[in-house]
Amino acid sequence: MKIESALADIVGATHVFDLTVRPGSTEEVARCLALLSHEKMPVVTVGGRTGLVDATRAEDGQVTLSTERLTGLHPVDVERRQVLCGAGAKLEAVQDWAGRKGLRFGVDLGARGSCTIGGNVATNAGGSRVLRYGMMRQNIAGLEVVLADGTVLSDLRGLPKNNAGYDLKQIFVGSEGTLGVVTQALLQLAPSPGASASALLAFASFDAAMKAADTLRSRYAQVLSAVEIMWRSYYARTARALLKDAPLPVSDEHPIYLLVQIEAGEETNDLLLAALEALDGVADGAVAQTAAQEAALWAIRDASEIIEHSHPRVLSFDVSLRPGDFAQYLVKVEVALARLPNPSTLYSFGHLCDGNVHFMIGYEPSGGQGDEAIEHCVYGPLADVQPSSISAEHGIGREKMHHLWRSRDAAEIDVMNRLRRALDPAGILNPHIRFEAL
Amino acid sequence: MKIESALADIVGATHVFDLTVRPGSTEEVARCLALLSHEKMPVVTVGGRTGLVDATRAEDGQVTLSTERLTGLHPVDVERRQVLCGAGAKLEAVQDWAGRKGLRFGVDLGARGSCTIGGNVATNAGGSRVLRYGMMRQNIAGLEVVLADGTVLSDLRGLPKNNAGYDLKQIFVGSEGTLGVVTQALLQLAPSPGASASALLAFASFDAAMKAADTLRSRYAQVLSAVEIMWRSYYARTARALLKDAPLPVSDEHPIYLLVQIEAGEETNDLLLAALEALDGVADGAVAQTAAQEAALWAIRDASEIIEHSHPRVLSFDVSLRPGDFAQYLVKVEVALARLPNPSTLYSFGHLCDGNVHFMIGYEPSGGQGDEAIEHCVYGPLADVQPSSISAEHGIGREKMHHLWRSRDAAEIDVMNRLRRALDPAGILNPHIRFEAL
Repeated sequence: MKIESALADIVGATHVFDLTVRPGSTEEVARCLALLSHEKMPVVTVGGRTGLVDATRAEDGQVTLSTERLTGLHPVDVERRQVLCGAGAKLEAVQDWAGRKGLRFGVDLGARGSCTIGGNVATNAGGSRVLRYGMMRQNIAGLEVVLADGTVLSDLRGLPKNNAGYDLKQIFVGSEGTLGVVTQALLQLAPSPGASASALLAFASFDAAMKAADTLRSRYAQVLSAVEIMWRSYYARTARALLKDAPLPVSDEHPIYLLVQIEAGEETNDLLLAALEALDGVADGAVAQTAAQEAALWAIRDASEIIEHSHPRVLSFDVSLRPGDFAQYLVKVEVALARLPNPSTLYSFGHLCDGNVHFMIGYEPSGGQGDEAIEHCVYGPLADVQPSSISAEHGIGREKMHHLWRSRDAAEIDVMNRLRRALDPAGILNPHIRFEAL
Repeated sequence: MKIESALADIVGATHVFDLTVRPGSTEEVARCLALLSHEKMPVVTVGGRTGLVDATRAEDGQVTLSTERLTGLHPVDVERRQVLCGAGAKLEAVQDWAGRKGLRFGVDLGARGSCTIGGNVATNAGGSRVLRYGMMRQNIAGLEVVLADGTVLSDLRGLPKNNAGYDLKQIFVGSEGTLGVVTQALLQLAPSPGASASALLAFASFDAAMKAADTLRSRYAQVLSAVEIMWRSYYARTARALLKDAPLPVSDEHPIYLLVQIEAGEETNDLLLAALEALDGVADGAVAQTAAQEAALWAIRDASEIIEHSHPRVLSFDVSLRPGDFAQYLVKVEVALARLPNPSTLYSFGHLCDGNVHFMIGYEPSGGQGDEAIEHCVYGPLADVQPSSISAEHGIGREKMHHLWRSRDAAEIDVMNRLRRALDPAGILNPHIRFEAL
């Protein structure tokens, strides 16, 4: 095919296969995109393919641009606490690289071993430590992006303050590959907290868990790294699957679980115990005594893949609302699901203090009932909860783009499209992701 | 005049005077801008007129849109720690309003009594507490902006996580009124630290001051609110002018001064004293014993207006670089200034940990030597310091726009202009501010 041989001329024949191109440098990305723009050839950028909204699947005739060869890790700048890395670098590799210098990259999520920094930028990744470090946006000191026409847009200066014109990197964070291809990111690091300690706590009600989370947040803000919530169905399924016949760390008979992590150097264990003593309403709990035990607790939280394979069909949701609205909203979703002809199971978990709950809903599509009915049970009640968003951290992709109007008004969607046309007039970047008003 | 009477039809005759229009609501702003866009009539948005880069002065035939009537302060949402306020609200009014609920708005700067929230957004204001709270961008939970064509773009949801499409508010922060008119901002508040304590410290060298700042930052990060630096010429001039014949808090014979502030509730005073004991190389110092004494120390730091009126002509600069590059760079500026035919005085101060130094250079223009020669002394040596920026927090305006190429490359400037055309195709918003490559 003509386009394949033209791409092979740029990146070498071994790096083009079946409409997938793997550039080895920013310059190669720029030349590929200039060519594709000129040919008006749609291109889908992929990183670790761990996204949850079906954003990176190429359609017939679309070129796939993989960042897998852009994995360079530059030396850590210890004084400025920054590191420059390629878009294809794995999150975990960056975490380890920073760790060797006694520093930490604050963003963390279950897919750390597979997801890439470029993907984290493109989706403004959240994860389990947003409470402490913010989302990806808050951890980016600079970006290098290639625009659709091959222009390299670079701000890797890493200055904490720079008001010389617009802060252009901001528009690419969370743009899901529709405005440019991230090739390098300068990441802001934090001092390594040195030690971590976690406890799994069970509560008799959501309100009791919420109250505990508020106490933790107000008294231990500076050392609290995570307050993750799991509802019973999620905890029971993942813990049982992981532990088989071994005893669970905490019985699976409670309605709500919190996984709490404190990181504070030498004082970590003492602070965790003090924090736990300050809490009312804890029905049961387990404090990890070793690093292996701590990892085991986190494995339960991170095991959403188990749910993924527990039903013929599983839909994932990623709703943002005020933590105080969680409980009432969830009841409405459950009631709506119960009214559907086909039985379904709701697994809920998420980031309590961020107001971000994930649902996974497992069911068997049959008798004409498909995904739309399930989506209606989730998004219908969400309309009554304001403020809210259909995507807290996963993005839009193909999967949620038809629901964008639920969270953004016509003016916002129009401006998104104006920006997109300004930066990609030929419309070649991830054109399958469309921002459409109702 | 035709345009004036059309504007008067929208806002009322008492709110239009001599091409200045003062809308009283978002809707009135929208109707005014729709009219002006239709007429292709340039419009300059003004808030408190405290900007330092000549951005808000209307030229002949330009309409001035003042936000002075958009001063509404909504009730503080204590649970979410957010407050919605009009663009014309004064920074100090917002600080006080939040304070009544035991909360704090983190952004603070000397012009607090006059500057407006809209102006703070438009310039991504910094100030003296960036170290602790970040710049304006980090303190904004939502924005309402009117685009050039009158479209109201609103995201006042205030969700901590929302990845449903682009985070559009980001592009307006620091855009100096060139992309839209901010009408309301939802501000993120922080717990009030309760008490503050400050000390003025003198050092025998920049290196000694830098070392002290590093110590403070690494050991007291969570309670440190400010580390402001003043060079001798600045301190001596402002302190003498304010205190007249009264004794200065610290002798004005030292080369470098740091004004350090700690805010940590009941422990504030103890922590400040502990912090000071941990420092090496302090040549002299004064700890404020009362709130009045603390205010007096800060008045010295904030008295740049005194410098403004000390010479026939004073130029202000706002340079961003690595703190470690400060000393060497300053020497080069001094050497360059000394080579000019006309004598000049350099007053330097700024935000040490942010890498942000302000220069004020006073001189008498004569014999053909004007501002350009002075600018050359500042920006010439800056080119050798990378990374650096000609504007850390003041923005570009008319005053610095001709130097933008020093801090942004042609691709960046081109993208700024693409975004501008996308949002303001008629080019009516602050058209005197131009982004031009070399």
